[in-house]
Amino acid sequence: MTPQPHPAAGAAVKAADRAHVFHSWSAQELIDPLAVAGAEGSYFWDYEGNHYLDFTSGLVYTNIGYQHPKVVAAIQEQAATLSTFAPAFAIEARSEAARLIAERTPGDLDKIFFTNGGADAVEHAVRMARLHTGRPKVLSAYRSYHGGTQQAVNITGDPRRWANDSGTAGVVHFWAPFLYRSRFYAETEEQECARALEHLETTIAFEGPATIAAIVLETIPGTAGIMVPPPGYLAGVRELCDKYGIAFVLDEVMAGFGRTGEWFAADLFDVVPDLMTFAKGVNSGYVPLGGVAISGEIASTFGKRPYPGGLTYSGHPLACAAAVATINVMAEEGVVENAARLGAEVVQPALRELAERHACVGEVRGVGMFWALDLVKNKETREPLVPYNATGAANAPMAAFAAAAKAGGVWPFVNMNRTHIVPPCNVTEAELKEGLAALDAALSVADEHTE
Amino acid sequence: MTPQPHPAAGAAVKAADRAHVFHSWSAQELIDPLAVAGAEGSYFWDYEGNHYLDFTSGLVYTNIGYQHPKVVAAIQEQAATLSTFAPAFAIEARSEAARLIAERTPGDLDKIFFTNGGADAVEHAVRMARLHTGRPKVLSAYRSYHGGTQQAVNITGDPRRWANDSGTAGVVHFWAPFLYRSRFYAETEEQECARALEHLETTIAFEGPATIAAIVLETIPGTAGIMVPPPGYLAGVRELCDKYGIAFVLDEVMAGFGRTGEWFAADLFDVVPDLMTFAKGVNSGYVPLGGVAISGEIASTFGKRPYPGGLTYSGHPLACAAAVATINVMAEEGVVENAARLGAEVVQPALRELAERHACVGEVRGVGMFWALDLVKNKETREPLVPYNATGAANAPMAAFAAAAKAGGVWPFVNMNRTHIVPPCNVTEAELKEGLAALDAALSVADEHTE
Repeated sequence: MTPQPHPAAGAAVKAADRAHVFHSWSAQELIDPLAVAGAEGSYFWDYEGNHYLDFTSGLVYTNIGYQHPKVVAAIQEQAATLSTFAPAFAIEARSEAARLIAERTPGDLDKIFFTNGGADAVEHAVRMARLHTGRPKVLSAYRSYHGGTQQAVNITGDPRRWANDSGTAGVVHFWAPFLYRSRFYAETEEQECARALEHLETTIAFEGPATIAAIVLETIPGTAGIMVPPPGYLAGVRELCDKYGIAFVLDEVMAGFGRTGEWFAADLFDVVPDLMTFAKGVNSGYVPLGGVAISGEIASTFGKRPYPGGLTYSGHPLACAAAVATINVMAEEGVVENAARLGAEVVQPALRELAERHACVGEVRGVGMFWALDLVKNKETREPLVPYNATGAANAPMAAFAAAAKAGGVWPFVNMNRTHIVPPCNVTEAELKEGLAALDAALSVADEHTE
Repeated sequence: MTPQPHPAAGAAVKAADRAHVFHSWSAQELIDPLAVAGAEGSYFWDYEGNHYLDFTSGLVYTNIGYQHPKVVAAIQEQAATLSTFAPAFAIEARSEAARLIAERTPGDLDKIFFTNGGADAVEHAVRMARLHTGRPKVLSAYRSYHGGTQQAVNITGDPRRWANDSGTAGVVHFWAPFLYRSRFYAETEEQECARALEHLETTIAFEGPATIAAIVLETIPGTAGIMVPPPGYLAGVRELCDKYGIAFVLDEVMAGFGRTGEWFAADLFDVVPDLMTFAKGVNSGYVPLGGVAISGEIASTFGKRPYPGGLTYSGHPLACAAAVATINVMAEEGVVENAARLGAEVVQPALRELAERHACVGEVRGVGMFWALDLVKNKETREPLVPYNATGAANAPMAAFAAAAKAGGVWPFVNMNRTHIVPPCNVTEAELKEGLAALDAALSVADEHTE
């Protein structure tokens, strides 16, 4: 793959984009989207001939990298056979995708409701929990992201909720454990875990257990900062849910399908939720697909009573065929194991070494191919390198960091005062080392903004 | 295409489906989904060797039929080139799809925000309207369907809303014009139109104009019954929106992209909304895709202020490539013109003739490839053949009609007391005649349930 630069073609793509494409989460006149010409494996390139190592996996979804030949072939074959068919029918690719997913989900989460992506998966999981319990409220964490539709973004804790929040919308936010920035004045993981569970149980008591349908958590919060929960926390939440008859929903849209070095992050903690949402890694986003894995008990609620929800593209054959191929590729090529091994043997020691050398690195967190560097002005005070939800000049230090990384050939994932190291789960050791070297240089730029 | 029957393969597909696939809008233990082996053009077939003429276009979305070779080839080519890429970048297929759509949308609806389907398109259109106007409420029609996510299903008027309705959720429902079952005691289309507009303006006055962000209407309501609005109604709604500073949202998820014999149903009425939602026909559902076409004024609201919404698969390259190919095929092959011509010359006269001969046909409504037969117990009283939202024994007459149609080789669209004739827009005259003959026989079965 040595594509020729073609700046004129890139300019045309960019011009049509600026004329007609309305972009997500953006001020339309203030953005300058890079025109991308192609991608393969862990890399992509623009029309000027610049190559970038993708340390973002898109938006943390291309878990097998770009253009995997076996998945491309499976899409081509399904397109030639039966590209689409309505959801009320039994279709081979749909059945097989559901079977392969159910085979891997924890416990008895063996019924699969397919959606188009993560947001509608969360919308439907919450609906199932409300109808199953007959209760209205949802509890979710402040440090979280659960999707862009109205119900999902109100369950979200991060600032993307604010402009869409019409006043709780049946959602109560609480604090999940995060020792580095503890809300509980804790000094050890054990203390943080115990106090976070106490905080949650007190919140349940004061909200009224009989009003709470579901607790929704990312197994490991993703865009909010990759805070791996302390041992015992999720098991403790499971116990609280059982005690109070609350449905436990784990959102594995970002953490699922190999990202953490397990098929699902829940496997790291031996916990089985009642409902689990997925998207992204299920087929590396080659075709839009998401879904909800449903326990036997909740599925039986809708055994003789219709489930009041659905969508035209539920179980879309092309998307399901891509999922079948992706899951088989991940199994055959040891992609999940690769993420676990390189995460532990390469990424973790390298990031810890960077943290020692760089004044700006406050904390290293993560597992598998799911890592965050928490950047700070001052390691003692832990003051973030930029304020919460900063824009413009206030965000200049992070913008300088990102620009330096790109100049060094790595496309970084940046959110607030953090950079996340989230390359494809089948990244190679050599690629990781190349990217980590570029991050090293970019962190030196960030160091200039420390005190 | 003469596939061999293969019942054992069908049984395996069905078994895996029943074990693992959770179906939309269904009581999971009471359904018996047909296993479908393949499809081409206007037909599909099962594993037993039965062929069906698809008078449903799936869920009214395969506007160019199944497996169009040019669109299949375009999907295969895009899969080989760049199957997926994150939404923040400029990508050729994304730019070109937006350009081709903007070229066809009415007025200055020239900015395209891509979603995964119709429901999230409606969610985002409503968000844009709320933020643009700074007002909370949405007005929509009782006889409507706008999607399955929480906000979209609350905007919906049909019974699929009920189980998900937590109490208006910022939505007020009103009555749109429908002379055959007039809520306004009208006797002519002109009277129905005037009274429906008076009803809407009074509703606006009593809700408070300064509280209303948007009026959301299907240009021609689809699943709710294909009620073509009388001349002047939509222009009147446009005037009310201008008078009171309300955003006018037309939902063309089902009616758009050729279904009515125009690129958009709005073209039939020479009306330009502020926001227009689409999905389904944009790429015949070969890959999940939806979107919102946005006016210059509303787009400029998010010029320097970020739009607080987005999704991982916004402008998905594979979905956009399918849209580019579909739109080009529709233009090259005169698909929109075919729908207009055969609708007027074949479907309309045939349905009127059926209505004369069959006691059960109360009214024929529609345009293009978008037709409804309103089935009744009694032509004088217009009592529906089955009650509103009937199930089980109460719905037996419609179930008998549907079974007879399937036995006759046509797969019918059935909703409450109606059957809709909504084949692909590139259906042939011979196919239409074959399907209409099978409906004729099935209507004789329904006749037995009239009084």
